[in-house]
Amino acid sequence: MEVKIVQNILAANDALAEKNREIFEKQGIFVINLLSAPGSGKTTLLEKTIAALNKEMKIAVIEGDISTSRDADRLKKYEIPVVQINTENIGGDCHLDANMIHSAINNLDLSSIDLLIIENVGNLVCPAEFKVGENCKVVMISVAEGDDKVLKYPLAFNVSKLVLLNKIDLLSYTDFDKEKFIKEVKMVNPSAEILSLSAKTGEGIENWLEWVKEKVCRRK
Amino acid sequence: MEVKIVQNILAANDALAEKNREIFEKQGIFVINLLSAPGSGKTTLLEKTIAALNKEMKIAVIEGDISTSRDADRLKKYEIPVVQINTENIGGDCHLDANMIHSAINNLDLSSIDLLIIENVGNLVCPAEFKVGENCKVVMISVAEGDDKVLKYPLAFNVSKLVLLNKIDLLSYTDFDKEKFIKEVKMVNPSAEILSLSAKTGEGIENWLEWVKEKVCRRK
Repeated sequence: MEVKIVQNILAANDALAEKNREIFEKQGIFVINLLSAPGSGKTTLLEKTIAALNKEMKIAVIEGDISTSRDADRLKKYEIPVVQINTENIGGDCHLDANMIHSAINNLDLSSIDLLIIENVGNLVCPAEFKVGENCKVVMISVAEGDDKVLKYPLAFNVSKLVLLNKIDLLSYTDFDKEKFIKEVKMVNPSAEILSLSAKTGEGIENWLEWVKEKVCRRK
Repeated sequence: MEVKIVQNILAANDALAEKNREIFEKQGIFVINLLSAPGSGKTTLLEKTIAALNKEMKIAVIEGDISTSRDADRLKKYEIPVVQINTENIGGDCHLDANMIHSAINNLDLSSIDLLIIENVGNLVCPAEFKVGENCKVVMISVAEGDDKVLKYPLAFNVSKLVLLNKIDLLSYTDFDKEKFIKEVKMVNPSAEILSLSAKTGEGIENWLEWVKEKVCRRK
């Protein structure tokens, strides 16, 4: 019975996600659903991405969080459209779902957006289970979290098109084994792309920016 | 309706958690429910704690994880009782609940345990909502996750008796503002105790060990 309820919830979510996807498709918007554990560096990556690409494409962001608008506040200075979703009062504490995104996009002028980045709630578990209408999921992990996370949270890595290994500026201060990490990503997702970077220092970020530009360009 | 279902689930869970608590109480076991995001260092703390205290008290561990027995495997060399719970096939991916703990303790000889540490699934959201029969929750965060996490994940800090700030060996390589962090912990939980340490290097770990010893001792 319990499983049945969960299946119904996921089926209803997927149907609405498909509707969202059609809306985005029609407007030619490339949509990234960005997942990670708390504190892996999603918002810092957004800041650097917007600063670098804001002049050549129109970017909007949907911020998912349980409480606070801290992440949205950090993006204010870039003067792009940002919608904050706080999940604590809408029954979905730990992840964004298609219905939340469906409501959020009413607050955006979709006809003037090329790239929409959805920063999910910081959580490597449930956000991986819910489609929201994205073109693809991107999962980020920081080297400070350890090299054993892929097989412990396999779905997040399995459903993501791109894996970002962040905070490589801390690599020499940790025991992180990059070869092991890459090997295990390939185990759960042979076609995953993997990029290493430091959103903070900017090292390697050009590969991420190229990846984004290529996706948005192909969309037009 | 949806909220009602959730309330019923939590009420049923809390009733079973209370039963677990009575069982632990009767056996004089001090039970810690250890929460954190993925990769904050829970298992490393367990390794150091067992190595330091194994001779003066009887320790057992319940490991919660979605997939794999990686954390349990790391504890094998200490030859203490360890029970692994994998949540992926029992409908509760992202957190441990009282029923899982109730099943797990059938695999432990409770009469010969002084301290039971339950390492929850790496997730700062849902594990905070579920009692499992513990004496207290302890939440751990690593400095690499950033100083803005308390107000973003307030429940985890609100329900925990002790907050462990881990990976202080990385403090000088990050922008973590410890004063801000402590101030915000006190905002959501004025009575919380806060200890800084590096489970990896051992710095500050003596304060944690004293805290544990005092709790277990008072229990006897």
